Amino acid sequence: MAESSEVKVLGTWPSPFVMRARIALNIKQVNYAFLEEDLGAKSELLLKSNPVHKKVPVLINGDKPICESLIIVQYIDDVWSSAPSILPSDPYDQAIARFWAAYLDEKWFPALKGILFAEGEDAKKALVDQVVEALMLVEEAFGKCSKGKPFFGGDQIGYVDIAFGCFLGLIRVIEKFNDIKLLYQAKTPELVKWAERFCQHPAVNGVMPETEELAELAKILIVKMRAANPPKS
Amino acid sequence: MAESSEVKVLGTWPSPFVMRARIALNIKQVNYAFLEEDLGAKSELLLKSNPVHKKVPVLINGDKPICESLIIVQYIDDVWSSAPSILPSDPYDQAIARFWAAYLDEKWFPALKGILFAEGEDAKKALVDQVVEALMLVEEAFGKCSKGKPFFGGDQIGYVDIAFGCFLGLIRVIEKFNDIKLLYQAKTPELVKWAERFCQHPAVNGVMPETEELAELAKILIVKMRAANPPKS
Repeated sequence: MAESSEVKVLGTWPSPFVMRARIALNIKQVNYAFLEEDLGAKSELLLKSNPVHKKVPVLINGDKPICESLIIVQYIDDVWSSAPSILPSDPYDQAIARFWAAYLDEKWFPALKGILFAEGEDAKKALVDQVVEALMLVEEAFGKCSKGKPFFGGDQIGYVDIAFGCFLGLIRVIEKFNDIKLLYQAKTPELVKWAERFCQHPAVNGVMPETEELAELAKILIVKMRAANPPKS
Repeated sequence: MAESSEVKVLGTWPSPFVMRARIALNIKQVNYAFLEEDLGAKSELLLKSNPVHKKVPVLINGDKPICESLIIVQYIDDVWSSAPSILPSDPYDQAIARFWAAYLDEKWFPALKGILFAEGEDAKKALVDQVVEALMLVEEAFGKCSKGKPFFGGDQIGYVDIAFGCFLGLIRVIEKFNDIKLLYQAKTPELVKWAERFCQHPAVNGVMPETEELAELAKILIVKMRAANPPKS
């Protein structure tokens, strides 16, 4: 284990974005304290450490707070710079990894989350189609990034693996609720195999939430969301 | 000038995001061909180089296309790695620079752009207040990042300078159209001085559009936008 007595992660267990920080620290074998936040009553430490967004995750290294999950992953890679590296060493490969991570967060995740809260079968189907179509692009990217190796990052879990893999819990919950498959053999065969490898990786398997537990939480969120936004009659 | 015969930027002159790539190349003294795109009839080269988003800017280095403006700036810093550096060398300073660049793009720019197309004085005023409030945060960040030096990046233009400075043209157009000040002495005195320095910098002053020219284009866009989205009666 690396020197780490002063490393903390402020987060919540179901958040895919918090998982990113935790997996990156696990890859670097950095010991850290995980401080579970109650988002209904955020801690003083969270409000002080992320005064702009007041969101998790925050990584605190000594007295330095770092916010935003992908920025945290990059920071962890830079500070604990011994192998295994999270970002590729080649600048072009790095740019491609950043491109896909940004694509997932900005274009793909909003559609994925939309399925969870969508009302009406047509709206839901349109989002499912959009998500599956995007996954086919990610499948293609997997071929290019992995170059025949098990992960986007090659032999090891890298930046895109972390960025994408953290959504696998949510993907499973959505598949379960809707009795559909988003990642499936016919359309994204490589990602199906990759997802299994990712979840079994020692840096991941203590961090990835159980589908059942996540599904229970999602049910509560959906009820709350619908109560706050009743359907228009 | 660095070796550069194969460097191209696909872009449009008014785009703040395209400016980022151009300023970064200028800082590194890389010669490049600027290929102006007609967004109404995108080139085959653009569609092939950015098949996912089909957007400018795209940097092409040899046969390698790189998309997304901040990813391009980082790539330029990595590939033409001799000084001056664009990103800070310290990982924490880098994380802070990335945080503010992301904040500007994700939180601040949508409100800024909103002012341009807002209908109704109340909606516009709410957005102006939001933009000015955010600029006060950026003013505070300037103090921390610049450490008493002229730029966010210290003695030289850096990552946040590029990310933020590219919006100065749009800020001026909005100020002109609405007879207001967004950057002003009373609330953001350091940013007022910084903006002057930034625009006079040799890496910037051939790239920053003239306010008049940008205002003419903005008028056309506003008319088009309103024709496409007529106000609800």
